[in-house]
Amino acid sequence: MIRHFLSLSSIPNSHILALIDRALFFSLHKTEPILKNKIIANVFYEPSTRTRISFEVAAKKLGAEVINFTPESSSVKKGETVYDTLKTLENLEIDTLILRHSDDHIFDSLQDKIQKPILNAGAGKFEHPSQGLLDLVTLYQEFGKLEGLTIAVCGDIKYSRVAGSLFVAAKKFGMKIIISGPGDLLPQDYDQAFVQKLPFDEAIKKADAVMMLRIQLERHQGLELDAQTYHQNFGLTTERINRMPDHSIFMHPGPFNRGVEISDEIVEHSKSRIFKQVNNGVFARMAILEWIMNKGE
Amino acid sequence: MIRHFLSLSSIPNSHILALIDRALFFSLHKTEPILKNKIIANVFYEPSTRTRISFEVAAKKLGAEVINFTPESSSVKKGETVYDTLKTLENLEIDTLILRHSDDHIFDSLQDKIQKPILNAGAGKFEHPSQGLLDLVTLYQEFGKLEGLTIAVCGDIKYSRVAGSLFVAAKKFGMKIIISGPGDLLPQDYDQAFVQKLPFDEAIKKADAVMMLRIQLERHQGLELDAQTYHQNFGLTTERINRMPDHSIFMHPGPFNRGVEISDEIVEHSKSRIFKQVNNGVFARMAILEWIMNKGE
Amino acid sequence: MIRHFLSLSSIPNSHILALIDRALFFSLHKTEPILKNKIIANVFYEPSTRTRISFEVAAKKLGAEVINFTPESSSVKKGETVYDTLKTLENLEIDTLILRHSDDHIFDSLQDKIQKPILNAGAGKFEHPSQGLLDLVTLYQEFGKLEGLTIAVCGDIKYSRVAGSLFVAAKKFGMKIIISGPGDLLPQDYDQAFVQKLPFDEAIKKADAVMMLRIQLERHQGLELDAQTYHQNFGLTTERINRMPDHSIFMHPGPFNRGVEISDEIVEHSKSRIFKQVNNGVFARMAILEWIMNKGE
Repeated sequence: MIRHFLSLSSIPNSHILALIDRALFFSLHKTEPILKNKIIANVFYEPSTRTRISFEVAAKKLGAEVINFTPESSSVKKGETVYDTLKTLENLEIDTLILRHSDDHIFDSLQDKIQKPILNAGAGKFEHPSQGLLDLVTLYQEFGKLEGLTIAVCGDIKYSRVAGSLFVAAKKFGMKIIISGPGDLLPQDYDQAFVQKLPFDEAIKKADAVMMLRIQLERHQGLELDAQTYHQNFGLTTERINRMPDHSIFMHPGPFNRGVEISDEIVEHSKSRIFKQVNNGVFARMAILEWIMNKGE
Repeated sequence: MIRHFLSLSSIPNSHILALIDRALFFSLHKTEPILKNKIIANVFYEPSTRTRISFEVAAKKLGAEVINFTPESSSVKKGETVYDTLKTLENLEIDTLILRHSDDHIFDSLQDKIQKPILNAGAGKFEHPSQGLLDLVTLYQEFGKLEGLTIAVCGDIKYSRVAGSLFVAAKKFGMKIIISGPGDLLPQDYDQAFVQKLPFDEAIKKADAVMMLRIQLERHQGLELDAQTYHQNFGLTTERINRMPDHSIFMHPGPFNRGVEISDEIVEHSKSRIFKQVNNGVFARMAILEWIMNKGE
Repeated sequence: MIRHFLSLSSIPNSHILALIDRALFFSLHKTEPILKNKIIANVFYEPSTRTRISFEVAAKKLGAEVINFTPESSSVKKGETVYDTLKTLENLEIDTLILRHSDDHIFDSLQDKIQKPILNAGAGKFEHPSQGLLDLVTLYQEFGKLEGLTIAVCGDIKYSRVAGSLFVAAKKFGMKIIISGPGDLLPQDYDQAFVQKLPFDEAIKKADAVMMLRIQLERHQGLELDAQTYHQNFGLTTERINRMPDHSIFMHPGPFNRGVEISDEIVEHSKSRIFKQVNNGVFARMAILEWIMNKGE
């Protein structure tokens, strides 16, 4: 059976812990070209340079070759379906398909029909599981455990697939989530068993880790928010960091807006794990590629 | 002397048969990196993702490195001639140039002046010889021979370089061609020694293989054809497939239009070789790259 | 300490001579994959296909992997600073950053903050040091020395980073520079210790090498110059070449305008080193990559 990597929700906890372990191993050791002679395609229906390059580096560090394919500049324009494009790539001898798409449900019909592993590099507004894994790697690296951690997530949560994948992981591993931000950007429905809503200045005092999300003010014109007001109400600043617990850290999936959700001077603060996350992203994706391509079965 | 791959017409039959043989070998065996340390450039003046990726995979499976170059986003904008661009690439230590261009006669003046092998990846409306070779590979794989086969080609034949290269091959190897489609899209002049024109429903009954061509209705507005009418008159459907000989197959160079020249439900019919052609394309291009780069002379 | 390659001015002459020597070695010998397992990123804020491919080939000939990144199609659009982009790439496990940018002073604040070698692939209107090095390689290859050579530079000198890097090198290595061209395109201030201004027809008679620069007439509409007039006054022609000294050569950084600054029929004249420069560019960049990545310290 083909092993895909589509959602953290469908992967057993033991496998996720093994992936975290493997990512931390890759962060510490020189790697062998275990995917030599394999060809991986980055198929990005939505642009995302940082995620694309992260996968490309991960693949190359494992010895694989990478084909970059941005369908909008190709036959997709001529109306080819995603299925036909992936089936074509499968027959072009591509060994693994890394797919990003704006459709929330793009994988539902594809996963049983494509005979090569598919890796979700971000789909619609729900899931971005390789980002979810790198966040878990960063938390585990910091705290040596996941269970019992409290994560405050702040910003545009409603439409964030980063938050989506984090919530899935939190539920699986017994973490508590605090959500915070402008009311219109918070989800209406959430599982009160592990999620609570708090004002931002409360949230940061209670969290082991604060996850700041990118806020795209231009998308929320109805809110009449300007950068300065947003920064005042929901921006992470030196002053706010000083009220966070000593052991706590903050994270951001990037790219970040200096002076909006995050103050210019704290990007590389000792509590910041922003660039550490970028670094862990490569190792997390190496672990994922190894996991789906070398099943050992 | 430099060996180019520009047209099936100028390559001896014995070499083409050896290329077919070699492609079938590559389809069955793990390959050695026989082009290690070679650098191949994909120089595409016209976009064609599927052909570009097919060459890129073929090169990488043989151990070569690939540089992708789309001149429209570069100094060509500044008015550089194709000759100057290729001469520059030759001096950039590129070992082989894979060229696609809209000009029918682009290779005429280039082939004697460039000191590196050039591979025609589609030129103007006449020839697309690597597609021609993969079609021959698919036919040979199916029928164990070429001579005596009857191929029905249907659709926009007049401006199709896929058809152009198939006709060249048919004449060389003693195949019969039936052409079919809207009158305005058929060539006026053709060699009646091996080509005949028949109504579509006659053609499919007599052919060993039916080659459906992509129809771009938006290009033929004078014809006042809509997709539905075209599908009714010239689309391959389950009903029509049932009237094809038992041993026969159908092909399509892709990308195909579901519901226009080909019915949605037959894309992966047991008679369809559409995705097989994609797969054979990689092996055919591996054979071509080996043939032009390792002359053994 | 990180070794960057930002300007010829800050590199000791002995190192530049060693780089020239190494480039000439690479032009003559088969290379070993001394940068195997290294990943190099081409980060081009301004497009430049020929420079980008030259670095890509140089890296691949040394066994390194290359990531191509054109920020304008990415998160930079979302307002990310150059520093944040490079810091992200550093954390994406990129080993060396090759950067082109329109800002003259882009490297000033970056060089002490990025923990990976940075290579200037063209910045603003001042410097293009890898082009400077390849020009030195070409001169050294031709004349066996640099000191005492006279180089005539003709055309749009004021805004040319090619000229900028050549002037730096000339001063360091005791070469004389003659500048020539339309008055408005010549620098007002220059170091009269080694630079003199002469009419074009004088300049070409006195030079060991003539460096023709690309003239982009569309950028100089105030000058009311047309291609024909420019060619007549400042174009290199057969007639003018016949008045150059026997031992002299001419150069052009490309892409060149046939019929404007250079006559159509002399592009491949025996005095032309245009394509030789392209070829030397690959070897010069191999030397630079080896120099910054394998410090041996």
